[in-house]
Amino acid sequence: MTHSVAILGASGYTGAELVRLIATHPSLRVAALTGERKAGMAMAEVYPHLRHLDLPKLCTIDEVDFAGIDLVFCALPHATSQAVIKTLPDGLKVVDLSADFRLRDPAAYEKWYGKPHGATDLQGTAVYGLTEFYREAIAGARLVAGTGCNAATVQFALRPLIEAALIDLDDIIVDLKCGVSGAGRSLKENMLFGERSEDVAAYGLGGTHRHLGEFDQEFSEIAGREVRISFTPHLVPINRGILASCYVKGEAQAIHAALESRYADEPFVIVLPFGTVPSTAHVQSSNFCHIGVAGDRIPGRAMVVSTLDNLCKGSSGQAVQNANLMLGLPETEGLMLAPVFP
Amino acid sequence: MTHSVAILGASGYTGAELVRLIATHPSLRVAALTGERKAGMAMAEVYPHLRHLDLPKLCTIDEVDFAGIDLVFCALPHATSQAVIKTLPDGLKVVDLSADFRLRDPAAYEKWYGKPHGATDLQGTAVYGLTEFYREAIAGARLVAGTGCNAATVQFALRPLIEAALIDLDDIIVDLKCGVSGAGRSLKENMLFGERSEDVAAYGLGGTHRHLGEFDQEFSEIAGREVRISFTPHLVPINRGILASCYVKGEAQAIHAALESRYADEPFVIVLPFGTVPSTAHVQSSNFCHIGVAGDRIPGRAMVVSTLDNLCKGSSGQAVQNANLMLGLPETEGLMLAPVFP
Amino acid sequence: MTHSVAILGASGYTGAELVRLIATHPSLRVAALTGERKAGMAMAEVYPHLRHLDLPKLCTIDEVDFAGIDLVFCALPHATSQAVIKTLPDGLKVVDLSADFRLRDPAAYEKWYGKPHGATDLQGTAVYGLTEFYREAIAGARLVAGTGCNAATVQFALRPLIEAALIDLDDIIVDLKCGVSGAGRSLKENMLFGERSEDVAAYGLGGTHRHLGEFDQEFSEIAGREVRISFTPHLVPINRGILASCYVKGEAQAIHAALESRYADEPFVIVLPFGTVPSTAHVQSSNFCHIGVAGDRIPGRAMVVSTLDNLCKGSSGQAVQNANLMLGLPETEGLMLAPVFP
Amino acid sequence: MTHSVAILGASGYTGAELVRLIATHPSLRVAALTGERKAGMAMAEVYPHLRHLDLPKLCTIDEVDFAGIDLVFCALPHATSQAVIKTLPDGLKVVDLSADFRLRDPAAYEKWYGKPHGATDLQGTAVYGLTEFYREAIAGARLVAGTGCNAATVQFALRPLIEAALIDLDDIIVDLKCGVSGAGRSLKENMLFGERSEDVAAYGLGGTHRHLGEFDQEFSEIAGREVRISFTPHLVPINRGILASCYVKGEAQAIHAALESRYADEPFVIVLPFGTVPSTAHVQSSNFCHIGVAGDRIPGRAMVVSTLDNLCKGSSGQAVQNANLMLGLPETEGLMLAPVFP
Repeated sequence: MTHSVAILGASGYTGAELVRLIATHPSLRVAALTGERKAGMAMAEVYPHLRHLDLPKLCTIDEVDFAGIDLVFCALPHATSQAVIKTLPDGLKVVDLSADFRLRDPAAYEKWYGKPHGATDLQGTAVYGLTEFYREAIAGARLVAGTGCNAATVQFALRPLIEAALIDLDDIIVDLKCGVSGAGRSLKENMLFGERSEDVAAYGLGGTHRHLGEFDQEFSEIAGREVRISFTPHLVPINRGILASCYVKGEAQAIHAALESRYADEPFVIVLPFGTVPSTAHVQSSNFCHIGVAGDRIPGRAMVVSTLDNLCKGSSGQAVQNANLMLGLPETEGLMLAPVFP
Repeated sequence: MTHSVAILGASGYTGAELVRLIATHPSLRVAALTGERKAGMAMAEVYPHLRHLDLPKLCTIDEVDFAGIDLVFCALPHATSQAVIKTLPDGLKVVDLSADFRLRDPAAYEKWYGKPHGATDLQGTAVYGLTEFYREAIAGARLVAGTGCNAATVQFALRPLIEAALIDLDDIIVDLKCGVSGAGRSLKENMLFGERSEDVAAYGLGGTHRHLGEFDQEFSEIAGREVRISFTPHLVPINRGILASCYVKGEAQAIHAALESRYADEPFVIVLPFGTVPSTAHVQSSNFCHIGVAGDRIPGRAMVVSTLDNLCKGSSGQAVQNANLMLGLPETEGLMLAPVFP
Repeated sequence: MTHSVAILGASGYTGAELVRLIATHPSLRVAALTGERKAGMAMAEVYPHLRHLDLPKLCTIDEVDFAGIDLVFCALPHATSQAVIKTLPDGLKVVDLSADFRLRDPAAYEKWYGKPHGATDLQGTAVYGLTEFYREAIAGARLVAGTGCNAATVQFALRPLIEAALIDLDDIIVDLKCGVSGAGRSLKENMLFGERSEDVAAYGLGGTHRHLGEFDQEFSEIAGREVRISFTPHLVPINRGILASCYVKGEAQAIHAALESRYADEPFVIVLPFGTVPSTAHVQSSNFCHIGVAGDRIPGRAMVVSTLDNLCKGSSGQAVQNANLMLGLPETEGLMLAPVFP
Repeated sequence: MTHSVAILGASGYTGAELVRLIATHPSLRVAALTGERKAGMAMAEVYPHLRHLDLPKLCTIDEVDFAGIDLVFCALPHATSQAVIKTLPDGLKVVDLSADFRLRDPAAYEKWYGKPHGATDLQGTAVYGLTEFYREAIAGARLVAGTGCNAATVQFALRPLIEAALIDLDDIIVDLKCGVSGAGRSLKENMLFGERSEDVAAYGLGGTHRHLGEFDQEFSEIAGREVRISFTPHLVPINRGILASCYVKGEAQAIHAALESRYADEPFVIVLPFGTVPSTAHVQSSNFCHIGVAGDRIPGRAMVVSTLDNLCKGSSGQAVQNANLMLGLPETEGLMLAPVFP
């Protein structure tokens, strides 16, 4: 049975990635694509790589007839998303790819996003979209909040270790490298080819990156106490990919064993042999996450490295995975595409 | 029904690309992977991006039991390929990705490859693998010779124009840009990142590139007279992609109409609106070929630009497309993967 | 003796490149830097790579005291440049890097730039800035018009051949590849890293690129008859560099000999051995131009390939070379910096 | 006065970089270039970007007449270097760019390099080449051991902090990102463009990278006790550049003040304003090192980020800086070239 979906905000990179994935998904069909500023245009004009597909034209949200829609992917900008979702028909299933419903606590939301939440009723009902850890709740949810792409990468590495109390919770340092597509298609001087090519630099310094709100919420809940990590993202000149290098205090072999055990039955999370660490290029354009563990010459220290594609497993792939669950489809349907290398 | 295939020479980029495509192909199953120097290794060690797949270990060709194999993809180096294929069981279907069976004339082979062909009997039976133009012969063939990746790109642009006598056959200039994966995974100083990044340069100058043999054979046959084009490839710092800029003498609008008409029913070849030209990034990792036509301020001149992914539509995707035909499967099966962008 | 220079429009890439070159120029000193929108900022904020230099703050043009200035580099946008230059003190020497004074004929200017020239008096006095061909006139000029970067690259390859009547003037096809810095630092969606990385595509199709005006003017004057070339630029994912592949009809050896002879005493233009063609990476960040010639299998055809760095030899390096002549300094002063490779 | 220098091992990237720098150095002249496997070739054949220079042909070391040489740059592979240097004339000044003389303790050398040192007499006399910290000893040295490029980057960030006892010596974590030219021009599969482009990955895991020997030696000596840091390098797809992200425990403002004070008079080491961190692109192809400091939301933690060009300040630029001192020339001579951006 085919389910009709709408993609709100289809003119951004995550919108285009949703269309790419749904193109070969056997049970999903794109019924509507919205883009306020590009309404009226064919998707092929905005994204010529999708030219072979028979897609509806971009329209405004107002023009969408939600009656025949089974599920909405909301790939709108932060803040816009909450304003739109609260106007959608009551029973309509929604996978939100923005940051608007990731934080459950209104105060935490206000702290990290600088203003009060505009849809606190919905906020309380949203399920955090990290599929491998919220699977059952997602299957029964009406609104799922897609995680931050950096937040997902780091959580795959650290959640099982916090759960199993294998690492020192007061000394977790995460140095993350991410590709430029994470910044989206909006016009910023520092995202020009001439500025990024040949450049590596840190950003979001000093604990100011908004994904920290997700870490604080999730890690503290798992640990049953407040957990605060140090986290610094760096921009690297690749299109897709996030690599999180997590420096922790704990026994490397035990850490590796815990990760292997936790992910043994997960189709998309792969733990590499001990001492092997992953490469962004090896998960590119796929829904897989690779994790590796190595020890250090200083006893009691370990490094856990995880990588995934920010647009796919970190965002649109995760969204489809969650939509599969919400629609009663097999979780992996349409998502087993092998990474593209080189 | 699932067909079992073997990939001979699976440790190169085209071998890995075959595995990637077959991974989500509903009717093909990888039964054997060979790699003489890497025999005994797991494919995941050679290509960690394929780690999620359950694949046979690499073995030597001698170790393969061809009894249960329905079709062989031969991704071996030039010259090795002919030596191996002539030892394969008689009825076994073969798609060769090397240059060994592209030229039908033994003299032409010797001219371009510098030594006599070692399997001239087979040479006479091989069908040239440009699917869109040899579809019926391929469906009935035992041995199909995959085209050169550059050769395919240019032929998609020019064959219909030569057939329709729309361009001056004595003044065709092709300036081609190709990505580095076309050179394969072998160790060459000029393929190091430090040498290729930030570099653009021509190679195969003066009409010495071996794909000229294919152009001469094919274009002369279509035209019914000798046709010789000028052809100069350039290396550009992208992983995947070929863009052929063809400068021809003819009426641009008529050229565009002829291409549109010729490819109207082709699932993988897309002609863009007149005046729009394609981008390598918009076909990346896919089996699609985009073609565009523009006029020039000098009347009677036109530019035809075609682009495809050298590893996919230019090589392994084409091979799967041909295998589909040879095995009686739908031609597009497993190949409708949307391009990955960005 | 040190000469004081002002750079108008220092916040663009060519402005920053001028500062880079002047930083180690023994006889030039930056006395003023302007940037209307960034007035008041330190150059180190706009271009942190220049942080080690002791530079004046950016100011508005109105704030510059031209009394102590010996020469002005005008790196302003097209059209703005003519409006500003006509307000500068009468005797002040000016090197303009914009397109405003490249075309000597007001009608040609209007044809290519879409509106009448706003300073036709000055237009008649400007000297075309291709140093190697206008050396004497430049030395005595008050206003020098820097050439287009693409225009310079192609002219180095073709001028001597047209002068010597070695090639068919009615059949010149130029396929040019250029790096992204040529588009400057302005915000355009197609200049984002995600859009350009892994992409090659043609632009300025069908004889619409404005540099054609320069080719028409210069080549026709040399030939003593109207000359119209076919010219198609392509964007390639490198920061700096232009490679022009010129397809001509003529004897390759004679062409090579003519180029070698013409440039034998030029310090910045190097003709490679016959059959060797240049690479953008080998002139990067320098004021050198490399030219190579190869024959074709079709007798009577040749390929001339020239390359230079668009920001340096194609723009700011050329500007300093011209300023040296205008100020009576040795032409090569400050410009013998070796290319950076890799 | 011009000093004649020989470059042993001129066919590698650091050799070519030495030639580039000496090309515009007013007091140095290249008198001999060696390359055992490329002896007899012109440097322009090996490195066409140096084609404009009048250079001696590559020869074997045996062919060099050291009589007229004032100083030798030794850019040979590790282990080869010590074997060659001990055969050089006694009084000849040598700047070694290999790892052979970086460690003063023969046992440490054997531990990190896996075999006994072959020139222990010389080993005791070599001065460690980190100019800003060994300036006086270098000026009087006969043999200077160039530092590792990673080792230099990290020491610029941490030495002043260890000296001033501003950070916890037992909890220093360094996550380093380095460009591919650091691996040199040798043929390695993982250095192919297709393998590195779009890839980020850690290497030298678990405290096995040889530059750790340098950190142990230097940091322990400064601290007066054993210091062991955690250090993990990552390969990023840029040509040149190292960025070291150092996570330390200490007061960020005090750390920043100490670095500013320490480097206030250093011409090549620039400390950015507090809270600003550096970019590899902003030091590219130069001899500058940029350092930035930021605090963390967790009190008592700080991040120190340093960056330099591995081939220049990290290797050949440092070597010229040391040669200047050894020859009694101004330390900055020939090295004030501004970074190239973009």
